[in-house]
Amino acid sequence: MTAAPETTVSARFLGLLARDLPPDRLTTDPAELAAHATDRSGTPPGGEPLAVVRARRTGDVTVTLRHANALGIPVVPRGAGTGLSGGATAGEGALVLDLSGMNRILELSAEDQLAVVEPGVITAELDRAAGTHGLRYAPDPASAAMSTIGGNIATNAGGLRCAKYGVTRDSVLGLEAVLADGTVIATGRRTVKGVTGYDLTALLTGSEGTLAVITSATLRLRPTPVATATLAAWFDSFETAAEASYAIARAGVVPALAELVDGPVLHAIDPALSERGAALLVVQCDGAGAAAEAAAVARVLAPLASAVQSTEDPVEAEALLAARRLALPALERLGRPLIEDIVVPRSRLAEAVREIRCISARHDVPVFTIAHAADGNLHPIIVVDPTLDRLPDAAWEAAGEIFALALRLGGTLTGEHGVGVLKRQWVADELGPTAHALQRRLKDVFDPRHILNPGKGL
Amino acid sequence: MTAAPETTVSARFLGLLARDLPPDRLTTDPAELAAHATDRSGTPPGGEPLAVVRARRTGDVTVTLRHANALGIPVVPRGAGTGLSGGATAGEGALVLDLSGMNRILELSAEDQLAVVEPGVITAELDRAAGTHGLRYAPDPASAAMSTIGGNIATNAGGLRCAKYGVTRDSVLGLEAVLADGTVIATGRRTVKGVTGYDLTALLTGSEGTLAVITSATLRLRPTPVATATLAAWFDSFETAAEASYAIARAGVVPALAELVDGPVLHAIDPALSERGAALLVVQCDGAGAAAEAAAVARVLAPLASAVQSTEDPVEAEALLAARRLALPALERLGRPLIEDIVVPRSRLAEAVREIRCISARHDVPVFTIAHAADGNLHPIIVVDPTLDRLPDAAWEAAGEIFALALRLGGTLTGEHGVGVLKRQWVADELGPTAHALQRRLKDVFDPRHILNPGKGL
Repeated sequence: MTAAPETTVSARFLGLLARDLPPDRLTTDPAELAAHATDRSGTPPGGEPLAVVRARRTGDVTVTLRHANALGIPVVPRGAGTGLSGGATAGEGALVLDLSGMNRILELSAEDQLAVVEPGVITAELDRAAGTHGLRYAPDPASAAMSTIGGNIATNAGGLRCAKYGVTRDSVLGLEAVLADGTVIATGRRTVKGVTGYDLTALLTGSEGTLAVITSATLRLRPTPVATATLAAWFDSFETAAEASYAIARAGVVPALAELVDGPVLHAIDPALSERGAALLVVQCDGAGAAAEAAAVARVLAPLASAVQSTEDPVEAEALLAARRLALPALERLGRPLIEDIVVPRSRLAEAVREIRCISARHDVPVFTIAHAADGNLHPIIVVDPTLDRLPDAAWEAAGEIFALALRLGGTLTGEHGVGVLKRQWVADELGPTAHALQRRLKDVFDPRHILNPGKGL
Repeated sequence: MTAAPETTVSARFLGLLARDLPPDRLTTDPAELAAHATDRSGTPPGGEPLAVVRARRTGDVTVTLRHANALGIPVVPRGAGTGLSGGATAGEGALVLDLSGMNRILELSAEDQLAVVEPGVITAELDRAAGTHGLRYAPDPASAAMSTIGGNIATNAGGLRCAKYGVTRDSVLGLEAVLADGTVIATGRRTVKGVTGYDLTALLTGSEGTLAVITSATLRLRPTPVATATLAAWFDSFETAAEASYAIARAGVVPALAELVDGPVLHAIDPALSERGAALLVVQCDGAGAAAEAAAVARVLAPLASAVQSTEDPVEAEALLAARRLALPALERLGRPLIEDIVVPRSRLAEAVREIRCISARHDVPVFTIAHAADGNLHPIIVVDPTLDRLPDAAWEAAGEIFALALRLGGTLTGEHGVGVLKRQWVADELGPTAHALQRRLKDVFDPRHILNPGKGL
């Protein structure tokens, strides 16, 4: 009896990897395969991956991709697996390329306010290392303590501070990346400005591992603000809190963060919290003008809020932010959270929230909402029974209506989590047929055989 | 006698444009052709363009490109022609697509802090319109009073304020653009965040008219700062001024602008100015913390400068900035300025300046230098005899050494002016062969027949 052709190809691929990679890189241990098959979204991968390569050097990536490309083996690049859209799910026959072991900070220049890091560096660790030089890495996705820089770049991750400091793309100066055929390219530069050539750095940022595998990144660091002032305001309705958030923008203040938490989330964290109001807005201002800006924010909030607390003490500030940080763990206690990530123009935030409440009622699906209010970035979270094999139809339909709502209000399907597999069926609606077709042709330039993270993103 | 084949194709092209465009769009008037053949760099175009299409609507652009693509006619998109790298030069047989007449502000939303504009809107006019709503358009290239938004996007223009607010790309949320074959695409969105699909907006920004013709842009506006504080400091040497500029960064201050002017430029503006010092550094801080930040800057400058003046009065601030604004007009009185635009990592600014002085001495070519110091963006300006037909060899060699210097110090050929034709021969050195080849393949996706601004950029 001869092996089926696909088995032969897979076996040949694994043989080549075993031959050409250092001995500790390749594993087919079933426990490892299972641990690398999905991400924090819990999306079922559809089968078992072929193997995991634990890359330690750029050379491991080039060897792996060269063979995979020659043999047409799908490759799923992976950082810490904290993605929320299924971008790192690896199904039947796929090779998982685990970059979490490429975790060295190669350079940290206080003079040039930049760092050169491998993709597996944990985001919060880079921020901590920068902190010893009076600097910080501004992007702070909620997963920062676990997620990797490579994964952050793959999804163009946001976070709380991007209200003022921009998303991951705004902190990426240059990249080293490996194309599908194993070619290494360098993009961008070590300077904050530069226009030689097309902006491949921005093109790779947010491409969810479908164009190239990032093996190093030159990242911008920024001075740690000299002062911080934090306010927490309670409101009688989520809509009023949303309106308060854009009254802050209208007053000309750019807060460092502005986080909105709705009543059901407050209740999930602690029923006592939800007795204080139907919504909580936490605003932080930073820099030399922090206190003056916080005072301006307090004046804007006063007529709208039922209570406002403020502090310039960092420990008290953390206590005010605690409700926001506890939101996801609290919802995870209730079931499996399906975290949506829509963005609407800032002025439509209150309208979006009203519509989401209608969608929730219509489908009888509880929706919990937190928002990065300054960006118009809403996370409506549908919590489903974790024992179910697949999402209930009602949850799926509610999610679809939430996406349609985002597009109708002039917004987007995903602000910072990426398309992954979960939002893929709505992508063409947002991009339109012409831009969608153009994007597919760009994919062909980078990855003509479509081995890089197939089925994700576009 | 029959016409040569190329004449037939050109004539056929002009016939199709005359048939399909509204009557006032097409001109072959020799005075118009001459006026549209080069840009502010004064680069000789090498022949006379075929015709000028003065587009008024997106439809004019699609008609023009559809016919040009079918017949293989080169098209040079053009805004106000204020480019400094020859990006809008249009030689023998090229069609000039003049977008300066598409100059409507289509929308200005104070609530969402954005504007939707046609590409021919003058940059300063958008900023002024935003000002009536307490907002501003942050990018402020020195040409802002004349240059267009479309041209700014084509070169990813910088300016003074990008020290704090980023370059043009950081203010472009979305674009409408026409591909070479006449297809209209929409990129990006109306929200500050969003990761659906690859970042075509960033890819088109800085592409110098070689990928698509921009017909509308959705631009981010920002609140006008509540306060501004300005300092001017005089130094005994340019190197000390450069060192002072990064001492500001080291102190954790992000100034709104930090402009450096060297002694020869001061002398060209007014010999009395150069008696005050060998270099001038003008720093502006803005926002609620402006005064506190300016005080911190003054403390940093005090031990290094020979004199420091400061003001919070906007009229006095303009007087302090006047020397910087007068630099280019003053040099234009001396001859034809060839303005270089290199960027080096901030910490290498003083070293770059020393090396530029050596290059100047070695080739006996006077080099005048101004710099956006916070970005490490230097403009070494070689002034040549305007009566010469071509650049003297010594000027060309000095320019080449300045580019090599930028790359050696880990910098780039161009920070904000673009490659155009003038820097083209050095592009491959910066990008490296692999990234260069990849960029050419991207060009093929957008413009397979290479009709869009041929000979520019890559």
